[in-house]
Amino acid sequence: MAGYVSEAVIRRLPGYYRHLRELEAEGVKQISSQGLGERMKLTASQIRQDINCFGGFGRQGYGYSVSELRSHIGKILGIDRVHHMAILGAGNIGRAVALSDSFPANGFLTKAIFDSDHQKVGTVIGGIAVQDVATLTTYLKANPIDIAVLAVPIQWAQQAAEDLYKNGVRAIWNFVPADLKLPADTTVVNVHLEEGLEILSFKMKQKND
Amino acid sequence: MAGYVSEAVIRRLPGYYRHLRELEAEGVKQISSQGLGERMKLTASQIRQDINCFGGFGRQGYGYSVSELRSHIGKILGIDRVHHMAILGAGNIGRAVALSDSFPANGFLTKAIFDSDHQKVGTVIGGIAVQDVATLTTYLKANPIDIAVLAVPIQWAQQAAEDLYKNGVRAIWNFVPADLKLPADTTVVNVHLEEGLEILSFKMKQKND
Repeated sequence: MAGYVSEAVIRRLPGYYRHLRELEAEGVKQISSQGLGERMKLTASQIRQDINCFGGFGRQGYGYSVSELRSHIGKILGIDRVHHMAILGAGNIGRAVALSDSFPANGFLTKAIFDSDHQKVGTVIGGIAVQDVATLTTYLKANPIDIAVLAVPIQWAQQAAEDLYKNGVRAIWNFVPADLKLPADTTVVNVHLEEGLEILSFKMKQKND
Repeated sequence: MAGYVSEAVIRRLPGYYRHLRELEAEGVKQISSQGLGERMKLTASQIRQDINCFGGFGRQGYGYSVSELRSHIGKILGIDRVHHMAILGAGNIGRAVALSDSFPANGFLTKAIFDSDHQKVGTVIGGIAVQDVATLTTYLKANPIDIAVLAVPIQWAQQAAEDLYKNGVRAIWNFVPADLKLPADTTVVNVHLEEGLEILSFKMKQKND
């Protein structure tokens, strides 16, 4: 992937991946930039520009090979490998992540779940026993993980993030509505669910005005 | 809110709301554009520009009143009122939404949950009995809702969205990784959780390259 890629293009990558996977499942072998554009509600020229930016390889008059392009974008996304995840917080969100089928289907495997609530420690979620968060350091020393899923109460989020950092975790999928302060070598992707609802409310209001 | 507001500004609105609510809880009465900028990792000039765009009202040398600005942004977002929600799909995601404390705290109240699985119908989630989706039309006629939370299996998503539309629902918070095709008077906000993980994977890879 050559050089600088804009945030807007990065944001579109998973959409490409999803549509190409669907096309593959539908048995489609080739697709033109126009066909892909109609499906993704982008112009053909936008599609060509994006794919060019990924280091693309369409052939004039032939379009793209669905499986080649899907596999290429999968490699760019880094989902051609397995990621091990640990979930911190066995509440509603932590449970939903642990029980999801779609994350393991893409190689994101939950290996451990931690909570500080002794009522929850020892219970089993999706085949995994919840461990006491007091054992986090010991666990991570023996079992390095790639991604921590942060789903703890807001007042513990920053401390938990720092503990993860100290134990070598450099990627956090953060479900807590808090801006984590962490060294620059950490990658954080925030899922602020409340914000999605607020945007929805805003857009509904805008349509009714 | 005067005229056109860019998508980037809209996206930042919930962040403003969250930070101002936190400041209010911390007992802060006034804040300068610089202070708010440091907190939100934006420049003071960006803050002034944004707030100006919301129809802002800072006073030179005084800054913004935290509670006035929070309440103003709450009104812009349309969260100064209650929204009634119905959840379609009582799986992991539907359950997590139904059991969350943070959505009702912002006036987003789950009033009903539907599923087609007879094992789930009649079970109670967060005090609400799951209803058979076959009764959706009857329910919506008697109990109009503002927002449907779509958390059904992917193969049923489009049909469910159309059923909601026919029954007057014009706003969907969509957790299904599918692009819903609906008339233009519908507002859809997508939460594609898988895509967040893929972006995380991409950014981790980028840092390691």
